[in-house]
Amino acid sequence: MSTHYNTLLEKVHELNDLQKAIALLHWDREAIMPKAGMAERVQQMTTLTRLAHRMGTSDKFGDLIERAAEEVADDDDESTEKRLVAEVKWQYEQARRLSPELVKRRAEVTGKANGAWQEARAKADFALFEPYLEQTIDIARESAEQYGYDQQPYDALLNLFERGMTTDTVRKTFAAVSDATVPLLQAIVSDGKQIDDSVLHQAFAVESQKAVARTIATAVGYDFERGYLGTVVHPFATSFSRNDCRITSRWYPDFLNPGLFGTLHESGHAIYEQGTDAAFSRTPLARGTSSGIHESQSRLFENLIGRSYGFWQANYSALQAAFPAQLGSVTCDQFYLAINKVQPSFIRVEADELTYNLHIILRFELEIALLNGDLQAHDVPTAWNDKMQQLLGITPPSDAQGCLQDMHWSAAMFGYFPTYALGNLYAVQLYDAALAQLPALKSELEYGEIGGLFSWLHENVHRHGKKYTPDELVTRATGQSLTHEPFVAYVTKKFSQIYGL
Amino acid sequence: MSTHYNTLLEKVHELNDLQKAIALLHWDREAIMPKAGMAERVQQMTTLTRLAHRMGTSDKFGDLIERAAEEVADDDDESTEKRLVAEVKWQYEQARRLSPELVKRRAEVTGKANGAWQEARAKADFALFEPYLEQTIDIARESAEQYGYDQQPYDALLNLFERGMTTDTVRKTFAAVSDATVPLLQAIVSDGKQIDDSVLHQAFAVESQKAVARTIATAVGYDFERGYLGTVVHPFATSFSRNDCRITSRWYPDFLNPGLFGTLHESGHAIYEQGTDAAFSRTPLARGTSSGIHESQSRLFENLIGRSYGFWQANYSALQAAFPAQLGSVTCDQFYLAINKVQPSFIRVEADELTYNLHIILRFELEIALLNGDLQAHDVPTAWNDKMQQLLGITPPSDAQGCLQDMHWSAAMFGYFPTYALGNLYAVQLYDAALAQLPALKSELEYGEIGGLFSWLHENVHRHGKKYTPDELVTRATGQSLTHEPFVAYVTKKFSQIYGL
Repeated sequence: MSTHYNTLLEKVHELNDLQKAIALLHWDREAIMPKAGMAERVQQMTTLTRLAHRMGTSDKFGDLIERAAEEVADDDDESTEKRLVAEVKWQYEQARRLSPELVKRRAEVTGKANGAWQEARAKADFALFEPYLEQTIDIARESAEQYGYDQQPYDALLNLFERGMTTDTVRKTFAAVSDATVPLLQAIVSDGKQIDDSVLHQAFAVESQKAVARTIATAVGYDFERGYLGTVVHPFATSFSRNDCRITSRWYPDFLNPGLFGTLHESGHAIYEQGTDAAFSRTPLARGTSSGIHESQSRLFENLIGRSYGFWQANYSALQAAFPAQLGSVTCDQFYLAINKVQPSFIRVEADELTYNLHIILRFELEIALLNGDLQAHDVPTAWNDKMQQLLGITPPSDAQGCLQDMHWSAAMFGYFPTYALGNLYAVQLYDAALAQLPALKSELEYGEIGGLFSWLHENVHRHGKKYTPDELVTRATGQSLTHEPFVAYVTKKFSQIYGL
Repeated sequence: MSTHYNTLLEKVHELNDLQKAIALLHWDREAIMPKAGMAERVQQMTTLTRLAHRMGTSDKFGDLIERAAEEVADDDDESTEKRLVAEVKWQYEQARRLSPELVKRRAEVTGKANGAWQEARAKADFALFEPYLEQTIDIARESAEQYGYDQQPYDALLNLFERGMTTDTVRKTFAAVSDATVPLLQAIVSDGKQIDDSVLHQAFAVESQKAVARTIATAVGYDFERGYLGTVVHPFATSFSRNDCRITSRWYPDFLNPGLFGTLHESGHAIYEQGTDAAFSRTPLARGTSSGIHESQSRLFENLIGRSYGFWQANYSALQAAFPAQLGSVTCDQFYLAINKVQPSFIRVEADELTYNLHIILRFELEIALLNGDLQAHDVPTAWNDKMQQLLGITPPSDAQGCLQDMHWSAAMFGYFPTYALGNLYAVQLYDAALAQLPALKSELEYGEIGGLFSWLHENVHRHGKKYTPDELVTRATGQSLTHEPFVAYVTKKFSQIYGL
């Protein structure tokens, strides 16, 4: 059947294959490649990215999209063909909106800015990064102008990662989260008991950590037959197809959490893409629908399952067997408390389940102010430390542990941070919907049986890939748009119990 | 400087980067990828191969080559620029000679033929493979016609792997090798002593094998800072740049040789490409000049160094330390004899240093007969077994251990086998030249000091990459074209000593 749609599909497959090759060049660089190969690898990635950009923004490709769109115009709104053409069209239009001059400048500036940021962080000297931050803010502003927006520049950037979400909605939602969690945190800090988490800070042999992380990842449903666990400096998940979705982790010889919960986190991301409908293969639909929904799955597996009492009732013995000397005399209850210790801290990626969102809210507010011109690069350290004090009640000893800790701004990546916190909210919203819809689930989870939850997530989230927008997906699954309430209720209940408030 | 040459160089870099991405898709498939990812991976490789083919055969690319060739026409014949343009032009012309119809048919037929070959080998039933072999022979014949040749079809195929080599030269050279080694082998079999190699067939823990293989590979000069050792089913070496040249090996839990000498073999290949001139980066010159010269380096490191008495004088203690229970009471002399045991055997890849070439000569003679029509696919098993008896004095118990053992013919890959034996001859020719040119080398090698040899190989072979043809390279390095005499003298002396003839 020689239709424009089929011709488009061939091109989409071709573009997908090229993008997956780029993803492999990146994965291999982080997980396997000797460091010495870096310069040539960057050139390889640059070349393939240019080829993919050329292919994905050509006039001819645009014409083909228009013709295919006409063919599927009368299809049902739920048809995969219609959704796929719409997604391809959206990506095409977004890619065409940025001027070649800006794309080129962005690559040049972020290359230098990343080096400057690394040096600034190492020396805890913000002044080294400041001039580059000014430039990446400019690039973000210009990008927002070129992409276009209704209300404010930040909407354009947020939209890249969380289709249809607005700055205004995020602001209101985050305010509600902050209003509920800041007092809870203060209560824990001032009135709560001290939790001893020293059992997590012992000598844990790396090979044993890897082995037990594999066991635990398998227990939550990550399919190693269609996966691989690599070791990297900055963990991530990536997929080359639904049949090859890889996770990575890092291993601290004297701290269990990063390896164990990092693996669960990336497993959540990978499980999402392992579960996408096989019919979406080699198309943009075979991915998570947004950064926020993607993060909801990683956080759900890391926290709602991975830091739950029921899960460890079922799986703690496997962990004890891997580390008999370290955990043999530690009870499951002690372990559960240790992995749920709440403590205001400086570094986002090390933050606990309750305080994590506050780190995000801080960055979100600074990003909007920077984009709107209400805050200058020069004043970022002060603004950062003020917000930190306000939200978490602590002040970083240096900018290295403050405003220089994340690489995102050096990459001109504004608008992404909020999705980390949206993920936490979506996670509980989805989890609660599953509980409401499956009468037996609550008791199943109490003894660590997650099969029912996994199936519900597969049915309501994973298999749909990128077919629905985040709002469509969450509304179909839970009956409503994003809401902070399930998250607030969840952390309030969980940490009130743990801290006896 | 905006010259046609520079424009061409940009395109050459782009094409190189795409080819290296394909190489990575392949490497990862063999060493890392979960099996379930195969179907999508094949599609990714097919797409990128098509893109590279399109890029490398376009009229525009051809025009650019012609213009650049004019610019460098008056350069010195040794100039890298002139050599690079000539190489690019050669590859372009070769790629354009095959008709799209043949390229397509080749892909289709070899896909099916490989499956049929696997089944035929598993069932030891040649009839299952015969109809596919007929087709791959046809494809090889047609390819030869389309590439063109002076004397006979086989020349065209040989030329793809060993530029400038002729079937006639190979035939004469192989006859001399056969004339010298068959009687030597017969003398060993009928008169020689029995060597006990049971020390190599013990339980060797795989992780210890890997560790000691790394030590030995480092000892021969493989640079792990610019490399990586992977585990695969069928070992190979590959490079993504001179700064990322990877080796792979396989590990038998009850036999030391495949892991240890396989690693040395692939190290030789990788050392060659690690040593190419940095100025050749991202061009076709940053590779070995031919399959035969490439194989000369792998065999030189595997056999002339790796199976020499002097090398193990220096390195045997490291091996003993890795396997104290297995080798603690085995002397270096016993080990040296064991790794040099000569025995006619059925499987090429397991053959010893003396009999290996006879396996190649057999295939070479059959391939020519098949291409010329003097032998029909149907009669391959009989012809194979006759030759096997004639050259090695043994007859395979089944075709699985006979004419079905190698995958090459299922891939329509004719003309490649001879380069394995040419590699053995080049290896000794180069080794002898180094000995003749470096007065101290002989005594250095006697106590395992290979630094002088390594430097000589780097200077005379590795750094030149693909700048010179195989014949130019070997003539510059040794003063003459390919000759069998050093090899014959080497094996005669070595095995006469070992077997006390």
